[in-house]
Amino acid sequence: MTKSSKGQNIELDLDRVAANGLLSRRHLLSAALGGAGLAMARPVIGQEPGINLEIPAWSKTPGPGTSPYGNRSAHAQLERQSGFGNPLYPGGGASRSPLQHLQGTITPNSLHFERHHAGIPAIDPAGHKLVIHGLVHQPLVFDYEDLLKYQMVSKIYFLECSGNSGALLYGGNPDGTAQSLHGLVSCAEWTGIPLSALLEEAGLLPEARWIAAVGADAASMGRSIPLDKAMDDSLLALFQNGEPVRPEQGYPMRLFNPGWEGNTSVKWLTQIKVTRNPLQFRDETSKYTDTLPDRTSLQFTFPMDVKSLITSPSGQMRVTQGDIYRVTGIAWSGAGSIRRVEVSADGGQTWGDALIESQQLDKALVRFSIPWKWNGAPAVLQSRATDSAGNVQPTRDAVIAAKGTINRYHNPCIQSWGVNTAGEVTNVYV
Amino acid sequence: MTKSSKGQNIELDLDRVAANGLLSRRHLLSAALGGAGLAMARPVIGQEPGINLEIPAWSKTPGPGTSPYGNRSAHAQLERQSGFGNPLYPGGGASRSPLQHLQGTITPNSLHFERHHAGIPAIDPAGHKLVIHGLVHQPLVFDYEDLLKYQMVSKIYFLECSGNSGALLYGGNPDGTAQSLHGLVSCAEWTGIPLSALLEEAGLLPEARWIAAVGADAASMGRSIPLDKAMDDSLLALFQNGEPVRPEQGYPMRLFNPGWEGNTSVKWLTQIKVTRNPLQFRDETSKYTDTLPDRTSLQFTFPMDVKSLITSPSGQMRVTQGDIYRVTGIAWSGAGSIRRVEVSADGGQTWGDALIESQQLDKALVRFSIPWKWNGAPAVLQSRATDSAGNVQPTRDAVIAAKGTINRYHNPCIQSWGVNTAGEVTNVYV
Repeated sequence: MTKSSKGQNIELDLDRVAANGLLSRRHLLSAALGGAGLAMARPVIGQEPGINLEIPAWSKTPGPGTSPYGNRSAHAQLERQSGFGNPLYPGGGASRSPLQHLQGTITPNSLHFERHHAGIPAIDPAGHKLVIHGLVHQPLVFDYEDLLKYQMVSKIYFLECSGNSGALLYGGNPDGTAQSLHGLVSCAEWTGIPLSALLEEAGLLPEARWIAAVGADAASMGRSIPLDKAMDDSLLALFQNGEPVRPEQGYPMRLFNPGWEGNTSVKWLTQIKVTRNPLQFRDETSKYTDTLPDRTSLQFTFPMDVKSLITSPSGQMRVTQGDIYRVTGIAWSGAGSIRRVEVSADGGQTWGDALIESQQLDKALVRFSIPWKWNGAPAVLQSRATDSAGNVQPTRDAVIAAKGTINRYHNPCIQSWGVNTAGEVTNVYV
Repeated sequence: MTKSSKGQNIELDLDRVAANGLLSRRHLLSAALGGAGLAMARPVIGQEPGINLEIPAWSKTPGPGTSPYGNRSAHAQLERQSGFGNPLYPGGGASRSPLQHLQGTITPNSLHFERHHAGIPAIDPAGHKLVIHGLVHQPLVFDYEDLLKYQMVSKIYFLECSGNSGALLYGGNPDGTAQSLHGLVSCAEWTGIPLSALLEEAGLLPEARWIAAVGADAASMGRSIPLDKAMDDSLLALFQNGEPVRPEQGYPMRLFNPGWEGNTSVKWLTQIKVTRNPLQFRDETSKYTDTLPDRTSLQFTFPMDVKSLITSPSGQMRVTQGDIYRVTGIAWSGAGSIRRVEVSADGGQTWGDALIESQQLDKALVRFSIPWKWNGAPAVLQSRATDSAGNVQPTRDAVIAAKGTINRYHNPCIQSWGVNTAGEVTNVYV
């Protein structure tokens, strides 16, 4: 039994919004609204002026001064987690964002997930060219400095690898974390030139229907993109959260296709060929196709689905009986903005509406939260997002029923975090 | 005379929106819209497949693999610029964001401006306390881990030092850059707990009117804040662009007062005393008051004014006769969102509307641009912002007429960048 700061009995006042401990958000917002606060603060011993707090060492001596480039606190050294390096592909691999430790919606550039097929080319922008050719009136070549003179657009967008969350399809990974299971999604403000402006400058021929985008990395990563997308909201991105695009994100320039699978946003972009048909690059035949149970494959499955994820509490965390937690996470959709996020603490039997704590931008992460009091019994925490197009995040069973378990791409399924009687949180399949 | 990619004569097609070379934005957007593009790309020599580009070295060999914490390109090493260190205040000083090299609206955390009065305390969050006391029902003390359990809000806000642009009031600094003159403004997504929630948990007494906020740095930086603001949109900020607040921004926690002068957003926040009257801290008497010509001083001048700044072309840059430039910059207001930015190339005689390239959020930076063709004659580039409350950015003369030249705080005046016949861009007073 917990007492609020005013001595009121919290148990009596808790508004339940769904079974197994999900509470009304006013319990995280304010003690005053309902008279029943979290009471996580401790009353000060003795009234002022007798507040008896030791002066810490860092308040007694001046600290170091300014610096040209700031660093993180020694107590907050978040890191990406690397995975699936393959000796056959030197430099290739991925690293995942520490989702369980991030808040808000923006991913710092140093922690943005990365994925590349032949390592990160060390490009000198003075020697980098972007060529637009193929079905155009006039092939063009652009220098980096040329491109900085074009009108740009700045938008906050999520980026997600189509292989993100793939492990959930075949099960296993009970020790998985939000980062190791789902860390191939991040979000940044991307600034660049509408690709339509550059294509129109070259002049599209009437038979143009696709573009083929090729990177300057040693993998010559290539993808075919329908011209409709390229002329809609695709960017030639030059800046990421205000500064030049990072090397592992394509410095000095990358294609950025908002809401689409990450690999189509070709990094280190050096060539755009306008074509009548897709070019069937190695990377869109051997990879990035969704193989169905009958061994046929879906190709060009570009948009990312509506999806959400509880980032805390999540895998390898621990909760304490009787405590109230801020259940929080992220949601996103390639089809628009997020309209609603629901949370369940009983494996999807009952749901409560979470609060959206952030802006709700098109094709960008949102942050949600809902208070939850753990009563000590086994629980299964889930979140379920709905987007502005009315799409509802599916269960794992529904994803498997639709596309089987051979496929490793495009898995937006609801994540289940199990809580056992010891308070341990793990990835479970329910 | 420039030719477009289709060989059309650009001179004939240019839409002028204001005198001295300001053009319609379609000249930066697309060649196709008006038939007159920038033509900054070069036609490829010979038609495909004969595109004759050398394969660069970085495309021939795999590069390095993933990393736990990403770094910038060796070709994009932006830095803050330090200024006004004072031997009497060890560790104190400021560093300024490289505004002329940033794009979009978000400032990367490592490049966010900093200002502190006794250096940066190296705080271990496990030993940091936040006390709320004074005119409350129950004084409370919060640990860092306690605070992470509260419902949070994520918002993108600018932060500006009230001393930013102060040098323009007394003139001089012809060699100044956007960074050295105006670099004490930055913008980030701040995530934290509404301060109202914590104050309500302590329970405000009826006579409460102000709060006094004190930092844990060796300067014991303190500011008095009207309770109305604290209960409105003030945050206890714990995260900055997704990751824990940086040490020079107040790790592990800072006050954040959206739209108000930066020093009120007390860093390393350790104490909030609820009071009837302002406490008259050293930092709100010896500093941060605006001294008028008659030597009286305005105190508690909290909100930052509507303001804008051309970041490129800007001081110490150079332009070439006949070239078309993307004139770009940032605008912001403590009173709301930015509604309009105008640009002049003739020192304020005629104005053209700039395009807003970014979102227009409340109390956040926006990015604007307008194309400009320099004809080789002397020019003066200026920008002028209007906010959602109808406030219009004033001229320098108007600011001086209102508050004189002794004052060094709250200068939102229009910046004039002069262009001489050699194409050199400098800070000028017109």
